[in-house]
Amino acid sequence: MTSFELIKSLHMPAKTKIIHLVMDGLGGLPRDLDGKTELEAARTPHLDALAARSQLGLAVPVRPGITPGSGPAHLALFGYDPLEYDIGRGVLEALGIGFDLQPEDVAARGNFCTIDAQGRITDRRAGRIPTEFNQKLVPLLREIALPGIETFVETVKEYRFVLVLRPAAGQKLFANIADTDPQQLGVPSLPARALDAASESAAGLVNEWIAAARVILKDHSPANSLNLRGLAKDPGLPGFGDVYGLKAAAIATYPMYRGVAKLVGMEVLPVAGEAVEAEVETLRAHWDSYDYFFFHVKKTDSAGEDGDFERKVSVIEHVDEAVVPAILDLNPDVLVVTGDHSTPAALRSHSWHPVPTLLSSRYCRPDGIAEFGERACARGSLGVFPATDELPLALAYALRLNKYGA
Amino acid sequence: MTSFELIKSLHMPAKTKIIHLVMDGLGGLPRDLDGKTELEAARTPHLDALAARSQLGLAVPVRPGITPGSGPAHLALFGYDPLEYDIGRGVLEALGIGFDLQPEDVAARGNFCTIDAQGRITDRRAGRIPTEFNQKLVPLLREIALPGIETFVETVKEYRFVLVLRPAAGQKLFANIADTDPQQLGVPSLPARALDAASESAAGLVNEWIAAARVILKDHSPANSLNLRGLAKDPGLPGFGDVYGLKAAAIATYPMYRGVAKLVGMEVLPVAGEAVEAEVETLRAHWDSYDYFFFHVKKTDSAGEDGDFERKVSVIEHVDEAVVPAILDLNPDVLVVTGDHSTPAALRSHSWHPVPTLLSSRYCRPDGIAEFGERACARGSLGVFPATDELPLALAYALRLNKYGA
Repeated sequence: MTSFELIKSLHMPAKTKIIHLVMDGLGGLPRDLDGKTELEAARTPHLDALAARSQLGLAVPVRPGITPGSGPAHLALFGYDPLEYDIGRGVLEALGIGFDLQPEDVAARGNFCTIDAQGRITDRRAGRIPTEFNQKLVPLLREIALPGIETFVETVKEYRFVLVLRPAAGQKLFANIADTDPQQLGVPSLPARALDAASESAAGLVNEWIAAARVILKDHSPANSLNLRGLAKDPGLPGFGDVYGLKAAAIATYPMYRGVAKLVGMEVLPVAGEAVEAEVETLRAHWDSYDYFFFHVKKTDSAGEDGDFERKVSVIEHVDEAVVPAILDLNPDVLVVTGDHSTPAALRSHSWHPVPTLLSSRYCRPDGIAEFGERACARGSLGVFPATDELPLALAYALRLNKYGA
Repeated sequence: MTSFELIKSLHMPAKTKIIHLVMDGLGGLPRDLDGKTELEAARTPHLDALAARSQLGLAVPVRPGITPGSGPAHLALFGYDPLEYDIGRGVLEALGIGFDLQPEDVAARGNFCTIDAQGRITDRRAGRIPTEFNQKLVPLLREIALPGIETFVETVKEYRFVLVLRPAAGQKLFANIADTDPQQLGVPSLPARALDAASESAAGLVNEWIAAARVILKDHSPANSLNLRGLAKDPGLPGFGDVYGLKAAAIATYPMYRGVAKLVGMEVLPVAGEAVEAEVETLRAHWDSYDYFFFHVKKTDSAGEDGDFERKVSVIEHVDEAVVPAILDLNPDVLVVTGDHSTPAALRSHSWHPVPTLLSSRYCRPDGIAEFGERACARGSLGVFPATDELPLALAYALRLNKYGA
């Protein structure tokens, strides 16, 4: 029996409410080996007081040592093992720009590139052209027509764009298609090769589109050609309602997170702006209508990616002041505070470090550790645990799971 | 290689002895978030002194967040992953009343129910008839004869009974048969439908029995019909001797635990009464004859189920005084003290919380934590670990496992 089958067979109706507060890239590193991490350095009186009556631990998003992208990291938080449930790169790229992907759409990540007179790739990223140049090329590519297919081309940034093929209503396309990017210089692009018989027709359409695109681009050096990668469809993930018996809502301001939440079957709620205060307003306004709220804070990650230790500290302090008390006022039955992965300012990137996590419920055995930080969490009774355990644990503490066996 | 194959390939003969002291439902919750759990509140000088020279940890019976029934919880303690090894509900029900189930027996849990003139179920539990009423109906059902089959009908309690079909010697029955209980009101019972070809003949016999039973019951409203659920046979679990190379004995006073121990191939020892002192006497009397003793204490769980915090504390204190020193006097090579699951008085039921566990051996690295309790165990060096690890660990600390590989 898989863990989803297990949970599906045990969940029961309840009136309890769960909040999953996710500070993106929350985990950090000390600036000096004897110093504090961003979270430890932050002044967080509300989280510290909450920690004292909670259970703490460190969540491993994918596997020990594995640095996750945002897609896999969020799937794990939602209880989907990212090694089992894969969202294709084309789909993630489309979600990341807020594209309203439909179930039968085939999405690809596109890269402009530079080729020489013999068609051999000389720069796989077209000299990282400015986004403005990309925005001039994309309308030209939108002119390409494919028989019976609607196409969408959207700028991401610099040399990156998204291509989406949408079949006519009732028609299907399959997207098991190899990348055209040979991942090396001095050789031509590969054709979009179908990896199974069902994907032959989509591969044919993709090759037709690429041929037309290359004619259009040929005089636009350094972006005089392109490659497509990660061709994929909505993976049709088991839904939150089905697996967990939860009516789930997402409160997030960035397209990627709203998109992943939608893929797992959450309702994505409107937020008036990007501020966490606006997210809190959304939470309050919809409090009565859902069982589970995914509450996403983006700016911890952005600060980490920028290598800005102090700004990350400030974002955490602001969440402690503007979000945590407001959440506690709603009196959720279970509150989990965590991140999707670590983004230490010291690394200026996502990292593999496990993520400080706090679980609060009237049915927990408080660790009595009055601090929310990496080293505090390392002493907590949740131990070092897979992030995919968070949803089953939250359901249990919300008294939403029946007994297994007699 | 499965973990059983691994252990099987490594175990070696030894004269060392292991005791697995299981206080049923040991884990608890604080009465108030800043208070102590039952185990923490109990005065346990012997366990505390033992803890100081032991390793501590928290055992997860099934999976994080999953509340186990007694069957799965004990299988886990014995090293059998409960999601892989399933004891059918009919078998557990038969074991629970001490029925001497034979390998070819098919057992079902029976529920008396109420039907209307059209045969539609109006009460799935027959108004929870008193046990005395049940005891009057069961002898009537024992009169039903099936061709070539011995049948047994036994009262459990209230509306619940057990039906066992025993084929003639040398004959086999298969029990992959769906429940007759439609799990809703206003519809008739379902037939006992075979889910594979091999189970057709048993399903036919079961339907024949049900038809005769309904004729007998028709004037005994509210128990004027019945349903059968969880039809199952002894699952034929790999035996303790084979997997672990242990000559194992069970000391338990309640039928369910004696039954599960028998299913995994333990010898079930006689105990003169229900007191733990009698269990200690049994342990002493058979000390020389076995390598491994499962020593079960029931009353921690009963107190938890009754929501009686103080009584659970008293039971734990009594075990500390009457059982632990007696066990230590025997000088076992390995002593594991744990529970099968948590039963916090605060919840009046089994729960998902991991179980405080202590492992004592001359080869352990003592944690130096002079307290046996949930929060103490959360700081222990065994960490948060699957309960199925306890047997392999006990074997290792008893120097009963060879090296793996060169």
